Order: sequence, then structure tokens, then C-alpha cells
Amino acid sequence: MSKQIRAAIIGSTGYGGVELIRFLLHHPKVEITSVVSSSSAGESIAVGFPHLNHVMELDLDQVDIDVIQNKADVVFTATPSGVSSGLIPDLLAAGLKVIDLSGDYRLKSGELYEKWYKHTPPTEAHLQQAIYGLSEVFKEEIREAELLSNPGCYPTAASLGLIPALSMKRIDPKSIIIDAKSGASGAGRKLGLSVHYAELNENLKPYKVNQHQHIPEIEQTLSGIVNEQTTITFTTHLVPMTRGILCTMYADLLEPCNEQQLINEYRDYYKGRPFVRIRNKGSWPSTKEVSGSNYCDIGFSIDERTGRVTILSVIDNVVKGAAGQAIQNLNLMMGWDETTGLQMTPVYP
Amino acid sequence: MSKQIRAAIIGSTGYGGVELIRFLLHHPKVEITSVVSSSSAGESIAVGFPHLNHVMELDLDQVDIDVIQNKADVVFTATPSGVSSGLIPDLLAAGLKVIDLSGDYRLKSGELYEKWYKHTPPTEAHLQQAIYGLSEVFKEEIREAELLSNPGCYPTAASLGLIPALSMKRIDPKSIIIDAKSGASGAGRKLGLSVHYAELNENLKPYKVNQHQHIPEIEQTLSGIVNEQTTITFTTHLVPMTRGILCTMYADLLEPCNEQQLINEYRDYYKGRPFVRIRNKGSWPSTKEVSGSNYCDIGFSIDERTGRVTILSVIDNVVKGAAGQAIQNLNLMMGWDETTGLQMTPVYP
Amino acid sequence: MSKQIRAAIIGSTGYGGVELIRFLLHHPKVEITSVVSSSSAGESIAVGFPHLNHVMELDLDQVDIDVIQNKADVVFTATPSGVSSGLIPDLLAAGLKVIDLSGDYRLKSGELYEKWYKHTPPTEAHLQQAIYGLSEVFKEEIREAELLSNPGCYPTAASLGLIPALSMKRIDPKSIIIDAKSGASGAGRKLGLSVHYAELNENLKPYKVNQHQHIPEIEQTLSGIVNEQTTITFTTHLVPMTRGILCTMYADLLEPCNEQQLINEYRDYYKGRPFVRIRNKGSWPSTKEVSGSNYCDIGFSIDERTGRVTILSVIDNVVKGAAGQAIQNLNLMMGWDETTGLQMTPVYP
Amino acid sequence: MSKQIRAAIIGSTGYGGVELIRFLLHHPKVEITSVVSSSSAGESIAVGFPHLNHVMELDLDQVDIDVIQNKADVVFTATPSGVSSGLIPDLLAAGLKVIDLSGDYRLKSGELYEKWYKHTPPTEAHLQQAIYGLSEVFKEEIREAELLSNPGCYPTAASLGLIPALSMKRIDPKSIIIDAKSGASGAGRKLGLSVHYAELNENLKPYKVNQHQHIPEIEQTLSGIVNEQTTITFTTHLVPMTRGILCTMYADLLEPCNEQQLINEYRDYYKGRPFVRIRNKGSWPSTKEVSGSNYCDIGFSIDERTGRVTILSVIDNVVKGAAGQAIQNLNLMMGWDETTGLQMTPVYP
Repeated sequence: MSKQIRAAIIGSTGYGGVELIRFLLHHPKVEITSVVSSSSAGESIAVGFPHLNHVMELDLDQVDIDVIQNKADVVFTATPSGVSSGLIPDLLAAGLKVIDLSGDYRLKSGELYEKWYKHTPPTEAHLQQAIYGLSEVFKEEIREAELLSNPGCYPTAASLGLIPALSMKRIDPKSIIIDAKSGASGAGRKLGLSVHYAELNENLKPYKVNQHQHIPEIEQTLSGIVNEQTTITFTTHLVPMTRGILCTMYADLLEPCNEQQLINEYRDYYKGRPFVRIRNKGSWPSTKEVSGSNYCDIGFSIDERTGRVTILSVIDNVVKGAAGQAIQNLNLMMGWDETTGLQMTPVYP
Repeated sequence: MSKQIRAAIIGSTGYGGVELIRFLLHHPKVEITSVVSSSSAGESIAVGFPHLNHVMELDLDQVDIDVIQNKADVVFTATPSGVSSGLIPDLLAAGLKVIDLSGDYRLKSGELYEKWYKHTPPTEAHLQQAIYGLSEVFKEEIREAELLSNPGCYPTAASLGLIPALSMKRIDPKSIIIDAKSGASGAGRKLGLSVHYAELNENLKPYKVNQHQHIPEIEQTLSGIVNEQTTITFTTHLVPMTRGILCTMYADLLEPCNEQQLINEYRDYYKGRPFVRIRNKGSWPSTKEVSGSNYCDIGFSIDERTGRVTILSVIDNVVKGAAGQAIQNLNLMMGWDETTGLQMTPVYP
Repeated sequence: MSKQIRAAIIGSTGYGGVELIRFLLHHPKVEITSVVSSSSAGESIAVGFPHLNHVMELDLDQVDIDVIQNKADVVFTATPSGVSSGLIPDLLAAGLKVIDLSGDYRLKSGELYEKWYKHTPPTEAHLQQAIYGLSEVFKEEIREAELLSNPGCYPTAASLGLIPALSMKRIDPKSIIIDAKSGASGAGRKLGLSVHYAELNENLKPYKVNQHQHIPEIEQTLSGIVNEQTTITFTTHLVPMTRGILCTMYADLLEPCNEQQLINEYRDYYKGRPFVRIRNKGSWPSTKEVSGSNYCDIGFSIDERTGRVTILSVIDNVVKGAAGQAIQNLNLMMGWDETTGLQMTPVYP
Repeated sequence: MSKQIRAAIIGSTGYGGVELIRFLLHHPKVEITSVVSSSSAGESIAVGFPHLNHVMELDLDQVDIDVIQNKADVVFTATPSGVSSGLIPDLLAAGLKVIDLSGDYRLKSGELYEKWYKHTPPTEAHLQQAIYGLSEVFKEEIREAELLSNPGCYPTAASLGLIPALSMKRIDPKSIIIDAKSGASGAGRKLGLSVHYAELNENLKPYKVNQHQHIPEIEQTLSGIVNEQTTITFTTHLVPMTRGILCTMYADLLEPCNEQQLINEYRDYYKGRPFVRIRNKGSWPSTKEVSGSNYCDIGFSIDERTGRVTILSVIDNVVKGAAGQAIQNLNLMMGWDETTGLQMTPVYP
């Protein structure tokens, strides 16, 4: 079978990069033609990632726009923030579609980007051109994207869990508190003391409390939904596991409702969107139940005594929080079924 | 050196029991004279717990009040809830001091006990007699206790983190949300699918959302502090680690204040209480930093944008959340320095 | 596309069972028509395994040969040892092909079975009828099987690592020592203290030293290869992880050779067998590099000082050690490409 | 109580260093007067190790021999190999007793040191002066030491497990195979991909097969016991846990014997040595059973079919494999009871 489009992956030796490879190898319409990593160029990608032996042994390419232009139709940039924005203008100018996993194009405000990311922002034109790829919510815009900005891992779990309740005016936007927990792969393959094995194992660590760069991204999305500036309280924690994000979210109900009502409304909202699964009453999702897959599972608890709802949302940060959603967005951009190449059952146990 | 008092431990083959042994062996004034476990009576405790070989090899005793009365001055009951209350009246009648780790005597209301624990409550007289042993807060009452009810693990971490702010009227009691996370040892040594290794490893699981039996215990304590009925939102999560509890707590500030003010006020509040350590500004505690020790570490973040404070409190659930605080309470009951036998440095890494 | 054959899974609520489901759902030629579990019959399989929500929600069937006969062409029995042998004669009599993952039909000697498994053995006729499904080694026999006995997890890793060296007379069969390590999923979903989270986490435990029931299975296979009775030394360890087996194997070289020679000979031996990957010189496999996949990775170290070779072999015990190899054997039995439905890239990290 | 001697710790911000602090704080005869770390000098040690808040908040000193000479009687050097040997000659010249945890003085042959450690060896005089501190075996020599070379973690577990059998001529020295497994803390606090959380979690990794620098150290010790050059086969593995070493060791019995005989002989050999515990027949040690303590637990299995014995030996690599044994050696050097300050019960679970 001849594949329909050719893809290059820049930053292919990070966890997002190798997860793109894992999924794209099973994608019936996409062929990976270039894996790019300036630090290890010339070497087979399977040297640093022996799990790819016999599976995918392409030699790593230098970052060279001309080469990429010849080899690919679409480029995934899975580079650190601050790096993507140096490459993407040239990639776009070369006529390539770009799906950026870095975070550089998520915030519409260059000022906010600079404040939270401490890098020089991309140009205003590119910021405005970029389409924010929360697949289930912005499907129509995504279909037209040339530059797709893939959402952050925490924002994906949080936004998918909150948007239906906000859009149905079930909860008070000013009351939102997000207690987020992530496995270590979210920090990438870059070494650091916080993800040194002996420091994280048998440990649970809050970090960047009220300071995480995903705060403005979530606020931007939720503000758009409710049409007013929304501010959240957001705590992040490192959990001694590799994959998985759980957002436990709290909000005041605007008027009393029960869990089954909410469940029904969420199921309506996500009708026809196969990667969001709403749990039955009394059942809450755990991270392992989506591990290795593109699912986002959401559950609820309402406490009548306090008038608050607790919304629990889990994803695999490397899949729905990165590579999987990027491919889901590519599918939408190409007019394909959004599940193409992504129908992987969670790996359990 | 001759020890001053003799202690018996009922329920010595659970995790709370063997942790009592670990600490009491280093206590200069207490001698363990009986370890009780009806299920394994007659066998050395080191058979089921080989880490105790050469350290402590007493044979396990039957539950027999006469024998215990002859062997001990004080009894720790580290039994499941619903079991302790069947033994304690006789132990008290036999003139023994009792420190109960089970939960049976924590709630002053028998009705609430029955609702949340699904067991028949102890008698009203015993419920009223029991002193709630949150060591740092109820020191004076504890000195006089004959029946000491040792706090739950979550309530210890949560209450120590919230009480100073509540008693200083810094936060709105109606706004309190507690996002609690625990390692698996909190579930004890009793087998269950939720703590089966392959189910919990590489997993993060919410459970008993708004339904945990520690909710009324925390509410009872906080209500007493603020002198009005207080209701909390409380979520519990199982984390893939053995020891440790982190409570991430959210509340609305009644008026603006900064982190350093709060830090100073907490340090004042806990002055002279060596097991509570307040972190410096910008530093948040992780569970490993107290592991194996009786410390409770507390840190803060204030978000001026939302007017909320985030309070982070960690303990080792087996120590400050169970065996350690029980010994701290014994020390207070005996008029000894509260740190006696408890000055263990956290085990790191 | 219409599927070619219908499969039933007996024992579908164990880890082997749900892993069969994960792979068969992606198999182009097999349709799962019945999932059987007497303990939960009538309930959707997704109730106990929420990761299967929206993926596979068949109701669990009773064990009923007539029903299975009507619904299926092939049956996977992923039941505990001692249970399969009670069902399989009837399944065979009903004209079904059977692939047994239980261990009941692996040993040709009923006497040995009784000694190591402590159950009554199957009939001699069925023991002789059963084909041992070590896919890479007994391909021809497997093609003809009606009753296929799927190898144990340890025997798969050990035999694949040792057989080429033995068949090429590189090593002394009398010198073989196998130091085997496994993750907790190998013990199944049945509760037990040894796989209770707080007991296994941050722990490494030898068990059944020289006593594991996989010893006679490995010896039977190796004895067949060298045509003489072979006895091994075999130690098993539980490692604090969910998936993965590593066998570190030691043997005396019959005459000096170097690692590259061995690598070349192993690559020759496994030519055309895509699921065995021989590592390059100086590179040794780790369990995560095959996790979630059907690969067996093998590496070597030769110590000229001692004249011994160290052979390292890793598999995912749930895949190549159970469900994956079972499907590989089905593929062979059906005359299909052996990789059909099994081309999953390892999940990394 | 006034402490009898003053100790300095060079390299106090590694895991060995902070474990020395944890134990020495409870040592009745030793006062820590200087903690040295050139990289963080001037800062409290509790900044980088918040578990030491309120426990030990000394400011870190520069490496300055004059200062150390004034402040200390004994110096622990817990520095990387290649660093200690640059400091120790001056420390000795200053009249200080030195206990070196680095490995620089373990091998008597400078040539072997250079081959395995790739550093310039210490002077021949210092190599010969250094006493090898395997506490249970070389007690007499240790009493006289001025320069004590603390054994490596693997060599401690392996040698304690093998020496009695060798000295009693129970096993063939030429047949020894050591399959060693370690938690991640053995690699120290220095960052590296092999101990990056997402790479080691849910993974089991062989490394340095037949190449570990502890090989010549073990061979030197065993050769001394049997009075002939002994060569071992030695494999090391990284296990996803923080603390603990298990050595599974294989050897040919010189003549048949049973497990109880061996148990008795080992108990005789280690009579009066409280930190070695020999397990009863049929019971094998796991790493958690010694975690946080100075114990070495040893168990056996004999397979009559093969004539081989399997010896299993566990330690906590940070305690008996480093800081604990170093203090045990100090106790011996000072003529104190060897358990002084070391009577910590293992932390379980």
C-alpha cells in the first residue's frame, strides 16, 4: 500500500518524538521519511532507542530545511520551547504543514508567552496563524490549519474536563481549582535532579505551585469558552510513575444538579468524539486505564453538602497529551477519520 | 537501664504495629512486653516479619485481658475499626492506659461513626472519655488522657496544615478543599485489588471521592477550632509508593496577606513543637523529606490573582499518621519530653 | 472486512486474558465472539476492566461447551493450572482448536506434572497430543496442532536464549545456571502477600529457589535439543515492576569463541523469525525495550578469563511469555504470517 | 553528654554523605563538626537536603585541610573515585584518621586500580597502608587502621555471603558466579540517563556485564581467603528501586552437604557479629528486610540434582554497603562496641 503523505519529525529523540514514531508506524496513510536530531545526526535512531531495533532504523538527519522540504509534506516539531519558533517560519515558507508540540505557539499573546516561558515570542503573525489543536473542541478550525499548535499535556486533561460544564453554565468559572498530577515522562528525557530516580521514586513532589507555564494556556482556553477573563488556581505534582496525568478539579455548581445529569450532558457534548470516555456514576478514572492510548477518561462526584463538583480527568501525557493528539490533529487537517492510526487499546496492566 | 513502663501492642502484625515496635525499641523509657495477634498466636513475630530477626523475637500472644493486665501498663490497639471498641472497655476496666490507633473513638458522635464506619459505635461514655490525640494542638488534654484516640493519617496532615490559618482567621472555613494523596501502606497489610502490585504500580487512582471516613474527623476538628460547623471537600488518591501523605489544600484568604506573613504566623503557632517544620518561602515539602520520621512539613503558595492560598502538608502516614504520633501522645501522657524515642532523622533517599 | 475465524477466551478476566483481547482486537483475521469467566458471568468485561470501555464491552459468558462450540472455532484457555485440563477434553471433542496458556499440557510426563504442579495430570493421550508452542523452535509441529500448549513465561525467555548455543554445541549443558527475574504481573491478578503493593514496592525478592514449576519445562526442552537429560540451576526473583522478564544465564563454553561469532550464529539460527532480535556486541537488553511487544531480545558477554558466556534474554511476560506467543502460534496453526496482529512497537518509555 | 571525637565528612552532599549524617547524629560518641562540599560551600546543608531542616543545618565548608585539621579527629571521605586520593595524603599527614568510601584504596595493586578505575592510582605506600574494612572478616586489622578503605557495596554483600563457604572449603572457588542486583542509589546523586526516572522505572537493566570495577575487589578478597588467585563471573543489574542489593551466588559444592549444615557453619562463623543474620532453612532474604539498617541477611538453597549451592545475600547499599559499615569500622578503630550508633531496626514496609 502506498502511503499518502510523508512526515518528518524534528526532535525525534525525545519521548514525544519516539511516541510519534510508535503511532505513525501503524498509520495507514503516513510514512515517516525523516527523523531529525541535530545532536545525534548520522546515527540510526535505534542506537539510542534499542526498542526500535528491526522496527525503525532510519539514520537521524541534521536540521536542514531544504532536505526536509524534499522529504516531507508535514513536519512534527517536538523540540523544546524556544527552539521550534526558530524553525517554523522557514518550514512554513517552504510550503510544509507544521504540527508543533513545543508550546511556542499556544498563547495568542506574545507578552504572556514571554512572561511565562522566558523566551522571545514568535512573531504576532505566526501567533495569530497558529490553530490551537484541542481536537475535540476546535475541530472545525483544525481542519484548515497550516500551523497547528498542539496543546500542553495538563491543558488537554484540564480543558476536556472543564469545558462542557463551563459551556453549559454548570459551574462558576471564578471558582475553578485544578490539582494536577503527572508522571515523570512529562519532564522529558532531559536530565534533572527532580526526575533523578532516587529522588522521585517513593516520593510525591509538588512543583511550580501557581507558577506553571500551562496556567495561561488553560486560562486562555477557558476564557474563550465563557467569553470572559477567567483565572484558575493550579497546582502541579510529580508522581513516581512514568506515564499519566490526573487532574482533580473543583468548582462551585451554579445551581444544584446530580451526577447523572452531568454525565448525560458530557456524553452529549462529546458525542461522536471517540477519544473522550465519560465514566458511569460512582466510577472514577485512574491513569493506567488510558495508558498507551489516546483516550481521555472523565468522572464526577458532587457533594450536596458543599455544592461543589469534583471532576476527574485522566490522559496518557505522552499520547493524548502529546503525540497522539498531534496525529489526531493531522487526521483532521487531512480530512481523514480522526481515529486513523490511533486505535490502540490501553495497555493494562 | 531499667525501663519505666511496660507496653503491649494489640494488632502487632499490621504495619502500624511493626512501626510501633521499630520506634519503641529505641525508646529509653518503654519496654515492649507483649505483642498480640490472635491470628498468629504462639509464633515469633519475626516469622511473618523477618526484618525483626535478632531485633525482636517475642512470641505473639492471644488476646487475653488478664495476661495483658499482668504484662503491661499501657496498651496500643492497632486493630481494624470495629475491633478495638470490643476490647477497650475491658482494658480500661483493668486499669490500663489505652492508646487506640483504630478510629473507633475519634468521632464524638456515635451517629456519625455509624454512618461513616458502618459499625456499631462505642458507648457514649467512652466516646466522651476519649481524648483526641492531635499532639501539637491538644497537648493539655492529652496529658490527662486514660483513653487516647490517635488521629487518622489524613486528618493529621490536613489539620496540622489548616488549624493555624483557621485559628488566626486567615482563611474562610467554608472554602476549604483538601486534595489528599497517600501511599499504599495506608491501606494496611490486608489484601485487596486496589493495592495489588500490578494494579497500583504505574497508576494513580482516586478513591472514595467525597466519601472517605476521615471527612467527619477533619470536620469535627476544624469545627472545634472555628466554633462553627465546618464542611470540607475532600478527595483521596492512591499513589504508587509505600509511605507518605501529601495534602494539597485550598482556601480563600479572608484578606490579602503574603507568604512570609503566613510562614511567620505558623512558626509562632508551632513554637516549641519540634515535629512541625514550616518551610521557607518558595519551598514546598515532598513526602520523602519526612519518610521514616515523625515530622510534618508545611509549605505555602499564595496567588494574588485569585486571593487563594495553597497549603501543602506532608507526613509519613505510618509514623506521624499512626505509630509515631501514638508514641508522642504516650510521652505527653507520661509527662516526658514529647520527642523521647522519636528523634529519627528522615531516611533519604 | 469479514474476519476469518471466531475465537473464545476462557479465563478472560486475568492478565493473560485481557492481553489476548488487546492483541486480537487488532488482528485482521480473528474475531472475539465470546469472553468467558464463570465468576463474573453476565456482566460486561469492561466493568472489572474499565480500560476496555468503548473498546470491547462483551458480556462475560458462563463456561458452557455447547455455547462455546456454537460461537467459536478456536479457544484460548487462560485459566489457572489444574482448571484447563478439566475443560480441554470436551473442547477438543467438540471439534474446537485449543490453545492452552495454563501449563497443564507442557510436560510430557504426567508424573513430573504431578510432582511440580501438585495436581492430577491430564490423560497420557492428551499430553502426547499437545504440541509445545515455542514458536521459533517448533514451527513445523505447531502448524499441525489441534491442542497447542503455550510455553511458560520463564521457559520462553530461557529457552530462546539457550537453544542456539546448545544446538551449535557452544556450551556445556551440564553447566547451565539461569538467574531469572520477573515483574509482578507474572503472578496474575490473584491476591497474595508477595505481590501486595507495600510488600513488593522498593523490594527485590527471591522465591521458589530451585523449586519453580518451570524447571522441568525448561529441562524437557533443552534435553530434547541436546538429546540427553539436562539439569539446570534455576532461581526466580520478583522485581518491583509490572511487566518484564530478564533471564541472566551462565554456561561454560566448550571451546573459546568471541561474542561476534555467537551473535552471528544466533542471527543465523533466528533468520526469518522476526520476533527474536539479537543485540550488537556490547549492548545488552533491558525489559522495557520489549515492553508491550512480542519481541525477545538477546545479548551476550564472554569472559575469556573464566571461559564462561553470559546470555541475557528479555521478554514481556504478558506478551511473548503468554498472550502474544499464543496468537503467534494461532497464526502458525492457521497458516498465516506469524506476525499477523502482533506488529506492536514496544511502548517506550 | 560530651561526645568523644569530632568527625568531618568530605563529600557530604552525596547519598553516602547524608547517610553518614543520619547515623552519626544518633551516635553517642561522635560529633559532626564539619560537612564539606566544595560545590555548595557557604550554604546550609539543609538547603539541598530539606529532610535535614531542624535536624542538622551546618553550613557546608570548603575543602581546606587546615580547617578540617582544627575541627576534626576523623574524616570520612565520601567523594568520587579519583578525588579521595588527591586529599587523603594531606589528611593523614595532618594526623587525622581517615575512612575512605571512594574505592581509591581498595585494590592493593595500583596496576589493577588503573585498569578498572581509569584513574592514576594512589602511591604504593598508601595502598599498602590502607586497611580493607570488611568489618566482620578483618576485625583485628581494622582496630589498628589509620587509613581505612571501606568496601564497595557489591563486594560487601558478595564477600560476606561467600567467605564462610570458601574458608570452610565447602565450595569450589573456580565455580563462583555472582548475579548482583542493585537499586539506583548505588549510582549516587550524579545525573545520568541510566538512572533518569522514566528510563529506570518499570525497567530492569543489566550493565557493565563482566566489566564492573568491583570485580577485582571481590577477587582480591576471595583470593586472600583461599590463598590462590580466584576469578569470578560477575553481572550487575539496575533494579527499579532506590535502596538495596541482592547477590544471588552460585557455586559447586566440593562434596554433598545439606542446607542446615551450611546454616550452622555460617552461624558459627559469624558468631558474635551482630550485623550478619543467617536465615532459617527454606527462608530467603529480600532487600526490604534490611532496608535502612546495617544488617546483611544470608540464605541458602542446595540442589542435590546439580550439586550446586545458591547463596543469597542482601544489604542496604547505602548502609552496610557504605555509611553504616564506615561507622562500624570507626567503632572498631576506636575500640568501641561495633554496634554503637548503628542499632537501627530495618524500616518496614
